[in-house]
Amino acid sequence: MALIVHKYGGTSMGSTERIKNVAKRVAKWARAGHQMIVVPSAMSGETNRLLGLAKELAPSKPSDAHGRELDMLASTGEQASSALLAIALQAEGMQAVSYAGWQVSVRTDNSYTKARIESIDDERVRADLDAGKVVVITGFQGVDDEGNITTLGRGGSDTSAVAIAAAMKAHECLIYTDVDGVYTTDPRVEPDARRLSTVSFEEMLEMASLGSKVLQIRSVEFAGKYKVPLRVLSSFTPWDIDINEEAKSGTLITFEEDENMEQAVVSGIAFNRDEAKISVLGVPDKPGIAYHILGAVADANIEVDVIIQNLSKDGRTDFSFTVHRNEYAKTVDLLQSKVMPSLGATEIVGDTKICKVSIVGIGMRSHVGVASKMFRVLSEEGINIQMISTSEIKTSVVIDEKYMELAVRALHKAFDLDQPAA
Amino acid sequence: MALIVHKYGGTSMGSTERIKNVAKRVAKWARAGHQMIVVPSAMSGETNRLLGLAKELAPSKPSDAHGRELDMLASTGEQASSALLAIALQAEGMQAVSYAGWQVSVRTDNSYTKARIESIDDERVRADLDAGKVVVITGFQGVDDEGNITTLGRGGSDTSAVAIAAAMKAHECLIYTDVDGVYTTDPRVEPDARRLSTVSFEEMLEMASLGSKVLQIRSVEFAGKYKVPLRVLSSFTPWDIDINEEAKSGTLITFEEDENMEQAVVSGIAFNRDEAKISVLGVPDKPGIAYHILGAVADANIEVDVIIQNLSKDGRTDFSFTVHRNEYAKTVDLLQSKVMPSLGATEIVGDTKICKVSIVGIGMRSHVGVASKMFRVLSEEGINIQMISTSEIKTSVVIDEKYMELAVRALHKAFDLDQPAA
Repeated sequence: MALIVHKYGGTSMGSTERIKNVAKRVAKWARAGHQMIVVPSAMSGETNRLLGLAKELAPSKPSDAHGRELDMLASTGEQASSALLAIALQAEGMQAVSYAGWQVSVRTDNSYTKARIESIDDERVRADLDAGKVVVITGFQGVDDEGNITTLGRGGSDTSAVAIAAAMKAHECLIYTDVDGVYTTDPRVEPDARRLSTVSFEEMLEMASLGSKVLQIRSVEFAGKYKVPLRVLSSFTPWDIDINEEAKSGTLITFEEDENMEQAVVSGIAFNRDEAKISVLGVPDKPGIAYHILGAVADANIEVDVIIQNLSKDGRTDFSFTVHRNEYAKTVDLLQSKVMPSLGATEIVGDTKICKVSIVGIGMRSHVGVASKMFRVLSEEGINIQMISTSEIKTSVVIDEKYMELAVRALHKAFDLDQPAA
Repeated sequence: MALIVHKYGGTSMGSTERIKNVAKRVAKWARAGHQMIVVPSAMSGETNRLLGLAKELAPSKPSDAHGRELDMLASTGEQASSALLAIALQAEGMQAVSYAGWQVSVRTDNSYTKARIESIDDERVRADLDAGKVVVITGFQGVDDEGNITTLGRGGSDTSAVAIAAAMKAHECLIYTDVDGVYTTDPRVEPDARRLSTVSFEEMLEMASLGSKVLQIRSVEFAGKYKVPLRVLSSFTPWDIDINEEAKSGTLITFEEDENMEQAVVSGIAFNRDEAKISVLGVPDKPGIAYHILGAVADANIEVDVIIQNLSKDGRTDFSFTVHRNEYAKTVDLLQSKVMPSLGATEIVGDTKICKVSIVGIGMRSHVGVASKMFRVLSEEGINIQMISTSEIKTSVVIDEKYMELAVRALHKAFDLDQPAA
């Protein structure tokens, strides 16, 4: 018997039929002797419907007052699905109770629409569990110190589930979703992509932020910080699948590096084509240049990813970086109007037809030559590398967008990711 | 400048276009210098949609645990519409904030799905009003002593608005709805029905409980208890109608009898055809008979309306009463199985084709002969009276259902209700 947290995404909660299946699955776990906490998302489409209504009434504006009301509004979707799940559990013959965030003191800061969880009061939940109840806690939402409802931003239910699992010291947090685990790369790009049975937190973090959108990245950070064993698994297996089989399915995200880890050097290929490259050419090479350029960009709340500064030549250098494609025009405008006049650079050039491909693996720490093998593979395919960025457990390259699939497949094969783990 | 409470029904909040109109109307009142509190219902259809989902998951069952979850679920409709209204008000250039019931401590008992308001903490609301904000408070819902969400039952937003007006000592509570006031009778039955510019609380209470479904009856009781001036008016007048004209429109429900009252003896004709008559014949006439029969009915949670006991003859009497038509079969079964064996009555007969027609008027207190005039009018129309029930300000008769329209029209004319008030 253990304390288990289940989290179900919007698709899994998408209809009363599906909610009944969730209830049956949770009841199976409870009847096997586990103490169960369930965190459901809003029914799929509901959050968009609500925010769509708000948009019809007023253009979104970054004011606290507006954000506060958006959170009041959006939080109702999760509250409704939580109550529905509790009703379905009761119909299954379970004792069940649902709580809104404020009822079990899911405390957050007051950053409306993107709040961060600060603490959770576990007393009421623990009393219910001890009384044999299944406890349904609304995800995505919390309450600030002044009693205002806050939400955690898109995908926030994952973070809620992990935070609750951490606060309750749960044995494991199971994230039921519409994929059956974490893959070596996107199977739509490489049909030989393989599901990983385990992946380390650090790798997952790099995979998530690089585009393998299985889990909200903040939930992975949270899980790492509080060492919550996290499992991603499919909610589309039949609810009456054998519980021992189910408990081992999907991908376990662990914080214990040595134990049961697949010892591949590279564990996955991540990629995204959401970025655009901007280069400022002929910048006088003197101290403070990077800050001069990127400070202005940061002040405009634009996130920068890869940054490269070329070697200086004749006292001038080229400075390149990538931003999200949606921010490309805004960033170029900003540089032209605010930065160029005082910078003395010669030109700004940009490219929106790029992509970023990364190899990720905890084994890279202790293996030399992994990056150079990546460069060799790409070179053999005739793919020109435009930018390179490295960290302890990943190496990313920016290349022409049209080579993305080719690069992913070549790297997937070269690093033996299509072979079963040793 | 005064403190005003506006309440808008589900139809008035039925689309974003309508919510914009509500916001414009409220903004007009605020700009005229009033402190504004607004209580909106859920968007029309939303509560039914939510409860429909619950019904798909589980048959409704009268357990506390089930009722608690229904309230968690249903309360989201009002919370969403409150947030949407606050957003629309902000788009109108107003400062606005919305609160769920628990955020301003709308305390209720813990009777889920039909809770009663016990207290409201006005501190936070008053601070907002003093800071120049329009305050939107969700209707229909509150919170019990243990922090569980409760709802007040169908039409509960009316009660919320009145309770808030009472707690805040508002100058007036305006209930915006899809009718433009209280009529002398239903205009669909009597085209000459006239809107009353004022009506007393007691009359309104009798009208509401007798079938003029303009306001939830509990809200009228509440208004009477706390002497909250209540106005029923149409939300379908253009939002930019002159505010002074609007402030005098609809029907004012007052608690001051003498001032500005229309001095008609009878102020309205109410009616309903929701009831059925049951007669227990040949009951031995001895003490305790009424309790013997009606006690069993009450124990089965069946509400009884009109009750008549005939004069005794040969030591036996006939006992008749009416119940809601939906409860007719259940009541007859109950009497047959549980009461008849021990009662020694000869027979049970019933009639579901009846209706109840009532004349209501505060003037009846001081005028004799009003009831007899009613009986004479019905007799002249050849309508047989089956049961009679009287109170201080109303007289009701039970008659054959097929005469209902005829009776209403004849009485409306006989009591000069088609004539403008003196």
